[in-house]
Amino acid sequence: LTRLKLSWAVGLFLLGAIGGLLGDAAHVETATTTYLSHGVPFIWRSALWFPIAVGLGTVATADVRLRIAAVDLWSGHERVREATAAIATVLALYALTAVLHDQPEGAATTLVAMLAALAATRFASGRAAVACGLAAAVVGPVAEIVLVKAGVAAYARSCDGLFGVALWLPALYFTFGVVVSRLTELIASEGGR
Amino acid sequence: LTRLKLSWAVGLFLLGAIGGLLGDAAHVETATTTYLSHGVPFIWRSALWFPIAVGLGTVATADVRLRIAAVDLWSGHERVREATAAIATVLALYALTAVLHDQPEGAATTLVAMLAALAATRFASGRAAVACGLAAAVVGPVAEIVLVKAGVAAYARSCDGLFGVALWLPALYFTFGVVVSRLTELIASEGGR
Amino acid sequence: LTRLKLSWAVGLFLLGAIGGLLGDAAHVETATTTYLSHGVPFIWRSALWFPIAVGLGTVATADVRLRIAAVDLWSGHERVREATAAIATVLALYALTAVLHDQPEGAATTLVAMLAALAATRFASGRAAVACGLAAAVVGPVAEIVLVKAGVAAYARSCDGLFGVALWLPALYFTFGVVVSRLTELIASEGGR
Repeated sequence: LTRLKLSWAVGLFLLGAIGGLLGDAAHVETATTTYLSHGVPFIWRSALWFPIAVGLGTVATADVRLRIAAVDLWSGHERVREATAAIATVLALYALTAVLHDQPEGAATTLVAMLAALAATRFASGRAAVACGLAAAVVGPVAEIVLVKAGVAAYARSCDGLFGVALWLPALYFTFGVVVSRLTELIASEGGR
Repeated sequence: LTRLKLSWAVGLFLLGAIGGLLGDAAHVETATTTYLSHGVPFIWRSALWFPIAVGLGTVATADVRLRIAAVDLWSGHERVREATAAIATVLALYALTAVLHDQPEGAATTLVAMLAALAATRFASGRAAVACGLAAAVVGPVAEIVLVKAGVAAYARSCDGLFGVALWLPALYFTFGVVVSRLTELIASEGGR
Repeated sequence: LTRLKLSWAVGLFLLGAIGGLLGDAAHVETATTTYLSHGVPFIWRSALWFPIAVGLGTVATADVRLRIAAVDLWSGHERVREATAAIATVLALYALTAVLHDQPEGAATTLVAMLAALAATRFASGRAAVACGLAAAVVGPVAEIVLVKAGVAAYARSCDGLFGVALWLPALYFTFGVVVSRLTELIASEGGR
């Protein structure tokens, strides 16, 4: 099995942190989420720990992807194009949830979940990628539920139907896991071309 | 020509009924549509006849698809992936119309119609699939207009511009017809692989 | 290098003018934009000069595309399908901006920009197409800023964060440039098939 190299981890951490900042800015701007504890340093619209957590989550997801199954080398010619499409997809879905946050939660969740399924059919290489998506769909929301229960942050009342976090949150994290798996496969295919 | 088998019909009926329940729940939750007659049994948010009608419509569309042209066997390897993408696309569009129902009807209709066209370029195998989409785009809205005129159900005033039903409804049914055609082709290709 | 033929220019002009009318109707209907000077002839919801300007912009973009790099002949079988997908994509994004116009501008811009990036990964043939997109992303918004400053038209206060025009406007024009490049390549491939 391919192992995660330090340079890959650094790149994935930065990518996750920047993507987290961009998506979280949309959530905070629309009041989808609100930071309740302000005794911490902030960067742009996020508490400093948020992009760090997303960056670490990105690296951890990539590591899991590499550990659970071998990576078929990416057979396409255009790795940058594929990576761009994958990143743009999860960030578009992230921003869409911000726009949808005050819609009835069931309809918004159906829309987000179906788009997550569509993204998976486009970017998941196989069972290992789907497994990474499912793991992220559990671990991410559970971590956010803990933070909400601890009074660190809150979701708007219109989108707090899953133990205080949004009902569509697992679908967003699922897409995150699938996309990070694809990026990991693209990075690991670097040497192969 | 391939004929519709009973097992295929049962599967398509169930798929259509479940998809109809999910999409209708989004329409009812957002008050895009309202059931006016409550003297009938309900299941989740729908009158019981609604998922049955969608299930029967799914089977009828599949039957029409098989009758009007031969099915080229699906050449791709991944039938489940393709079916998932097709189903997720029409259900995402269904939920999107719920979210858009109180937007100005022209803009919402342009958006839904363009996404329907995009879905057709992705999932329509050829003229027979487009014909199924067009047939659904006529029969479905006409049936709903009759129900609205009979006082059984109503669309919100913000989206009733087509004789009492939504102006974007034909585009949604068009996508339904194209997607059911693709599913039919995938099912009919089962023996070929 | 292939040169733009008169018949191609006429077709692209009409396509751009009709697409501009359709998208502008969504912007005007939702009050995303408002015409302030009514001493000019109108067609549908647009001042007559608007579809003419979009049509000329379409022809100019196609001309630039042909001048900056040779066109690889389109290798796919289905030119009409590809053209439909490209046109539907930019018009869907146009209508989406109308629907998003009263959302917080940052979140709306992130969503539109990510969808523009996704469209580029799908329709841009290479650097020349991206260059056409970037050129349109500069020239289009600058022209609209001049019109807004001249008091000819205005964007809603909820979406005027880029010198009086919408912050997402460059991303919409970028998609326009990429899509027109693809259409130009498809037209220029006509003789090759």
